[in-house]
Amino acid sequence: MNSFGQIFRLTSFGESHGVGIGGIIDGCPAGVEIDLDFIQNELDRRKPGQSKITTQRQESDQVEFLSGIFEGKTQGTPIGFLIRNKDQHSNDYNNLKDVFRPSHADYTYLKKYGSRDHRGGGRSSARETIARVVAGSIAKLMLKQFDVSVHAFVQRVGDVELAKSYKELDLNQTDSNIVRCPDPETAEKMIARIEVAGKNHDTVGGIVQGVIQGVPVGLGEPVFNKLHADLGHAMLGINAVKGFEYGSGFEGTRLSGSEHNDVFIKSDSGIRTKTNHSGGIQGGISNGEDIYFNVAFKPIATLLKEQQTVDKEENEVTINPKGRHDPCVLPRAVPIVEAMAALVIADHYLLNKINQS
Amino acid sequence: MNSFGQIFRLTSFGESHGVGIGGIIDGCPAGVEIDLDFIQNELDRRKPGQSKITTQRQESDQVEFLSGIFEGKTQGTPIGFLIRNKDQHSNDYNNLKDVFRPSHADYTYLKKYGSRDHRGGGRSSARETIARVVAGSIAKLMLKQFDVSVHAFVQRVGDVELAKSYKELDLNQTDSNIVRCPDPETAEKMIARIEVAGKNHDTVGGIVQGVIQGVPVGLGEPVFNKLHADLGHAMLGINAVKGFEYGSGFEGTRLSGSEHNDVFIKSDSGIRTKTNHSGGIQGGISNGEDIYFNVAFKPIATLLKEQQTVDKEENEVTINPKGRHDPCVLPRAVPIVEAMAALVIADHYLLNKINQS
Amino acid sequence: MNSFGQIFRLTSFGESHGVGIGGIIDGCPAGVEIDLDFIQNELDRRKPGQSKITTQRQESDQVEFLSGIFEGKTQGTPIGFLIRNKDQHSNDYNNLKDVFRPSHADYTYLKKYGSRDHRGGGRSSARETIARVVAGSIAKLMLKQFDVSVHAFVQRVGDVELAKSYKELDLNQTDSNIVRCPDPETAEKMIARIEVAGKNHDTVGGIVQGVIQGVPVGLGEPVFNKLHADLGHAMLGINAVKGFEYGSGFEGTRLSGSEHNDVFIKSDSGIRTKTNHSGGIQGGISNGEDIYFNVAFKPIATLLKEQQTVDKEENEVTINPKGRHDPCVLPRAVPIVEAMAALVIADHYLLNKINQS
Amino acid sequence: MNSFGQIFRLTSFGESHGVGIGGIIDGCPAGVEIDLDFIQNELDRRKPGQSKITTQRQESDQVEFLSGIFEGKTQGTPIGFLIRNKDQHSNDYNNLKDVFRPSHADYTYLKKYGSRDHRGGGRSSARETIARVVAGSIAKLMLKQFDVSVHAFVQRVGDVELAKSYKELDLNQTDSNIVRCPDPETAEKMIARIEVAGKNHDTVGGIVQGVIQGVPVGLGEPVFNKLHADLGHAMLGINAVKGFEYGSGFEGTRLSGSEHNDVFIKSDSGIRTKTNHSGGIQGGISNGEDIYFNVAFKPIATLLKEQQTVDKEENEVTINPKGRHDPCVLPRAVPIVEAMAALVIADHYLLNKINQS
Repeated sequence: MNSFGQIFRLTSFGESHGVGIGGIIDGCPAGVEIDLDFIQNELDRRKPGQSKITTQRQESDQVEFLSGIFEGKTQGTPIGFLIRNKDQHSNDYNNLKDVFRPSHADYTYLKKYGSRDHRGGGRSSARETIARVVAGSIAKLMLKQFDVSVHAFVQRVGDVELAKSYKELDLNQTDSNIVRCPDPETAEKMIARIEVAGKNHDTVGGIVQGVIQGVPVGLGEPVFNKLHADLGHAMLGINAVKGFEYGSGFEGTRLSGSEHNDVFIKSDSGIRTKTNHSGGIQGGISNGEDIYFNVAFKPIATLLKEQQTVDKEENEVTINPKGRHDPCVLPRAVPIVEAMAALVIADHYLLNKINQS
Repeated sequence: MNSFGQIFRLTSFGESHGVGIGGIIDGCPAGVEIDLDFIQNELDRRKPGQSKITTQRQESDQVEFLSGIFEGKTQGTPIGFLIRNKDQHSNDYNNLKDVFRPSHADYTYLKKYGSRDHRGGGRSSARETIARVVAGSIAKLMLKQFDVSVHAFVQRVGDVELAKSYKELDLNQTDSNIVRCPDPETAEKMIARIEVAGKNHDTVGGIVQGVIQGVPVGLGEPVFNKLHADLGHAMLGINAVKGFEYGSGFEGTRLSGSEHNDVFIKSDSGIRTKTNHSGGIQGGISNGEDIYFNVAFKPIATLLKEQQTVDKEENEVTINPKGRHDPCVLPRAVPIVEAMAALVIADHYLLNKINQS
Repeated sequence: MNSFGQIFRLTSFGESHGVGIGGIIDGCPAGVEIDLDFIQNELDRRKPGQSKITTQRQESDQVEFLSGIFEGKTQGTPIGFLIRNKDQHSNDYNNLKDVFRPSHADYTYLKKYGSRDHRGGGRSSARETIARVVAGSIAKLMLKQFDVSVHAFVQRVGDVELAKSYKELDLNQTDSNIVRCPDPETAEKMIARIEVAGKNHDTVGGIVQGVIQGVPVGLGEPVFNKLHADLGHAMLGINAVKGFEYGSGFEGTRLSGSEHNDVFIKSDSGIRTKTNHSGGIQGGISNGEDIYFNVAFKPIATLLKEQQTVDKEENEVTINPKGRHDPCVLPRAVPIVEAMAALVIADHYLLNKINQS
Repeated sequence: MNSFGQIFRLTSFGESHGVGIGGIIDGCPAGVEIDLDFIQNELDRRKPGQSKITTQRQESDQVEFLSGIFEGKTQGTPIGFLIRNKDQHSNDYNNLKDVFRPSHADYTYLKKYGSRDHRGGGRSSARETIARVVAGSIAKLMLKQFDVSVHAFVQRVGDVELAKSYKELDLNQTDSNIVRCPDPETAEKMIARIEVAGKNHDTVGGIVQGVIQGVPVGLGEPVFNKLHADLGHAMLGINAVKGFEYGSGFEGTRLSGSEHNDVFIKSDSGIRTKTNHSGGIQGGISNGEDIYFNVAFKPIATLLKEQQTVDKEENEVTINPKGRHDPCVLPRAVPIVEAMAALVIADHYLLNKINQS
């Protein structure tokens, strides 16, 4: 149950304060050129301590590839990889050993498995997403061959919302600021909002938007594995995610059918749709238009302030965590959203090879 | 790719105007008592023509079980079933044979497979969900043994929204009105809203809310198969769904962490949480509280009015469909949402049997 | 657990004395031409009562396709099918209801599931293989497009062995006699051997050999899903099978490496091997040579003579079954072996599409 | 396609001359005690250079566990592990870069993937089985909790055959000699036979027998995943294996049904069978008797003598490999056979937990 994907398939392992995080990518075709600098850069986009609004832990998160790559190219054999954990302050967690932190996985893990690695959340830590970023960056490299691009950016922080559509923005500017919003003005406001949360020893949530361009017509399996259902599954598997919508999403349910329908038109580049409420997916299958979607992230549960809770013996206790934690997870979530989207598209790209004989 | 679930697993088949719809349920344990009246009633809740606000097609949708049940109980062997199609007006679709209806799957199917069964949408028709309702009703019967209940109801139609929380309502009243909203007053308004859409030859969307009660602590696999990720996957696989959120959902992202966290408390029934923004799931694993979620349905694409589009030869054409179609899919979607939720919970219930040795 | 194959995937259902046997073929590409006469003929090769050496039950085993085929071609959607049971003498089994027949699945089923459908073996009956023959015949039709042929024949009955290699025989003559051995002289001896068993109210086993020709280089996944491992898995899943070997098999283990190695040579048709001890598979991957293998079938357990056993209450009892049973299962096993082989090759054919990007 | 098992699931990676070999074990329940000395000992049983009849490469094959184990016990989370390659003489293989060694995977890999890691066979090297031994030893530790034991031993080398049944032997004596045959007298003859092969720069094959004791009634899924079918699949996936048989196997097909049937009897320990031609499995499900099977290993293809072959450009060439290679793979295959058997039984043990509700 630690695998994702049908053909292009990631299996991940690792706890936040164990030896390391890693995984195996199975089903990646032979011949994909591996750009190690690109992959490391994706990891750096995810890593803590990259700016004043993220936690100051200084892990380097260096990936070591263990197999499947020879003379710079994938071999069609499984790609093993490992990122060793460093800079672990396991002792920071000793006083939390027997305590259930509110809205964390401490209680549910213990009940499910009968024991738990309490150090930094163990397997439930978002540190596990390192494996997804590595696999996703290889999926991105594969998709690049077919001119498919995958972008994500911060669309809302608390109530600070980006008013423009992604079509009005240069998505290559996303990383030009530390909050990863491609609109500089909104980015400033978002940063200010996160700083307020940090000063209050509190946290703030928001929305990451994903945009996938260049997807050919035909990806997606029509019934249970609709392309958007697999994208939603991927996004809802990211830590702290509470919702997913694509195309017109929740708001689109307020329109009438005649307003919502995307009329087909003839264009220089073949059949297109006039509007794109469908978000590039019809009947679960890509139609060649842009795929776009929103992912809701809750304000993360780790607060650097006093909270009530109970411990394993059902005593009421007060906790007051110290340490290094992000007041807002969204800027670092951007590469994770991109990685998961790339994994889904790569998987469906391969699956679709078998539909016509 | 037409299977759903890891252990309790439905594989479905069937087109809307072919021989019938059916499926195989594999992995259902032996010994579940099969109540055929209950199952038929679930199908009747989904069927068209049940009220003035749904389409007047009069299929009887009688399920025939083909295997896996002996002397009234499941045998642990696969349960095959078939619902024959009747009352097919295939000729209604002849004039749409070469035309791509807006926001339908006509175009994407043809591009994906090189051909398509154009009669009534073929495999892309929501008639396929019959198979899900049958499988889901068996999942419900299995879950009943463990006192797990699965409810859904219409929470919003267009802009007509149910103002109360599910906790203030009697969910057993959902079927007391034709729109399946457990609040009679709101139900009246929703029915009126749908009738307006029908008169305009237009359609209207909205939200179905699901509530699952009695789930034990420990269901859900922590990384990719978080309980809510599998619920979201299930819901996004239903025709016309555009979004999924659970617990505090999209709105919860506007709260601060200190507002959003669910504080653990000691109660007569063991450890509980004071609030339930988590929607009964923490770290992807059920915590014993109610699981609740929203599913967004778009206004369906079939309008009984004139629309522009193109055909296979890229000619611009005008279509003006006749026939029998729902102005609002939500009342009939309620049992489908329940069925998919039951399948997810049954599957995780079985999966969780293996976590402690 | 009632599914076979990764991509071209059969899920089967059905008990011998229930409503019928059927299945779903998922992952068959669109565009395969369906020859219904060919499929029915494959079923007739499997059916009982076809000759004096097989049981006299007269089921017609007519397949009804329920979905996935439109205007004579597969659509890429799942292919549902059903063969209704007829001519059931369920009462023949009433006296065996509480008894464990020797070397049957009665005891193990009851212990595993807590109950069992005792009528004719229920799910453990070889009648289930009907579903495999239907799916295998569609796999054969798909493979025919690529000039891959799948043959099987009876190679040994008891001690009566075919002395010639398949290369000296015309495999199209297999069905020219009722025992399905392509050498007429040996066939006569085999028939006589089976008649002796029948007269003794006893049964006899033997070997079916399979030969697959025209397989392109490259099918097979190198580690756990070696092409021969998946073939062996398929064959060992057939009722009454006790062993599988391919290429030089068990006897080849007596050779030295220098005798056993297949030397590569240059030929008009590219690189070939001088000998074929490898049975067309090297490192788990097809090398373009003929694939050949042996499947060992035990003498079936149903004897029409008195036998000792125990019943559910652990009483010692004597049974003396009456009814219609084959003294030798091999002639009817030939199309089943072919069907399973075709399923494996079709599946790997599709899987191999994704290995090079 | 580099995963094995449905629930207790190994995914492996690694090439013989890359960074290392490793894997992820997913689905191992929480609470299994991990005995690191036991695991290392299993690896030592597989490693080269352990005796005068095995290759003199001196890899230490030290396993490093990367996750999933905390305070000496499994956590229910995935267990990552890595064995770094050492003592690689990659340059030994430079002259074989463009050459297809007879009966190796060089030709098929190149055709399948378009490129290959030629160093020591890359992914096709039996060095990959290290991952299986690690996973299998954890499966053994899990099974030990339920008193299931898994044994294998060398039953035949070339024509030197062990005449006794496993029931007459002390299987704990298997490792008392370097050939791993529990009968000292036969072991001497086998060692002599291997030494002859070595002196001739040739290789010799044979049979490994597996015996699994203490398996409860009920493991195995009745149709495609019969317990023996999954065992056969596992064994046929081991390098150099050409055949598999269980219970009475190929020879049993010469018996009549009345000789072959295993009569049920009442015993002090409940229902048993008088004979065990069924090899402990009836209808694909374990019946509580000993499970036993034979695995045929070909004489391995790497000869330290001159051989004809062709290269990538289809030139005829002569090769004359140097280096360190086993004349007989069987002694080192014993722990691999045990490992794969343990994986199958552990997987079915977990699968069977869900059959009765």
